[in-house]
Amino acid sequence: MDQRVSLITLGVGDLAASTAFYERLGWRRSLQSNEAVTFFDLGGSVLGLFGADALKEDAGLADTADATGFRGVTVAQNQRSKAEVDAVLKAAEEAGARIAKPAEDVFWGGYSGYFADPDGHLWEIAFNPFWPIDDEGRITLAD
Amino acid sequence: MDQRVSLITLGVGDLAASTAFYERLGWRRSLQSNEAVTFFDLGGSVLGLFGADALKEDAGLADTADATGFRGVTVAQNQRSKAEVDAVLKAAEEAGARIAKPAEDVFWGGYSGYFADPDGHLWEIAFNPFWPIDDEGRITLAD
Repeated sequence: MDQRVSLITLGVGDLAASTAFYERLGWRRSLQSNEAVTFFDLGGSVLGLFGADALKEDAGLADTADATGFRGVTVAQNQRSKAEVDAVLKAAEEAGARIAKPAEDVFWGGYSGYFADPDGHLWEIAFNPFWPIDDEGRITLAD
Repeated sequence: MDQRVSLITLGVGDLAASTAFYERLGWRRSLQSNEAVTFFDLGGSVLGLFGADALKEDAGLADTADATGFRGVTVAQNQRSKAEVDAVLKAAEEAGARIAKPAEDVFWGGYSGYFADPDGHLWEIAFNPFWPIDDEGRITLAD
């Protein structure tokens, strides 16, 4: 597994209010934001704001006991193909991670799964065909 | 406030065990790690593993009701001077953030404070004289 982070997602209660807060700090949301998610380009990685309940469901925790320990924050590492997603999740499981959600095709056009590290921190491992990854592993939003 | 993240810190229950997990994934810890904290260079930013209780205390939450909502994760943005730390915390407060911990000199030789965003996500705003920030706002660990 490469040593990098593509996306930090903060779960929020009110997307418009949280987005407005970061905009008051001088941040500019990506044009790829929509009514369900706000993205901020961090220069190589991305910060996302996403409804906390939707984030919990996305991580496959909605109907499990693990939901009680949901932290409302996830980190993601994007891969260059579906096969790489499968390989990273397999490596994580072999290293002792719990697979929170096996990889699957997802509604936004990508392929994604989650593992939980020993403390329950959730890593999304994803292939996003709309977010190119450069040779240094950095994400560039096409704004 | 610049649009960037310097450090993501995951609170852990057993630092050695968590560090070993990431090493099994192929990650290499920075030489700046010590018995209390593990750092992984992410290429422009850093991932830290730090005891969850120590992290909570560092964020000034140990003796407050807010501790119940502690997520066990913080994000940090480093600044180039103590004055910049003060300015960012002031701007955050004016934008509606709650100051979780006013900036102060800290034991590791830096200067740091925390604010909580509208959902309670904690941002550490810090001046770390040992971690240079380049013109693009990226952190390079001197390994």
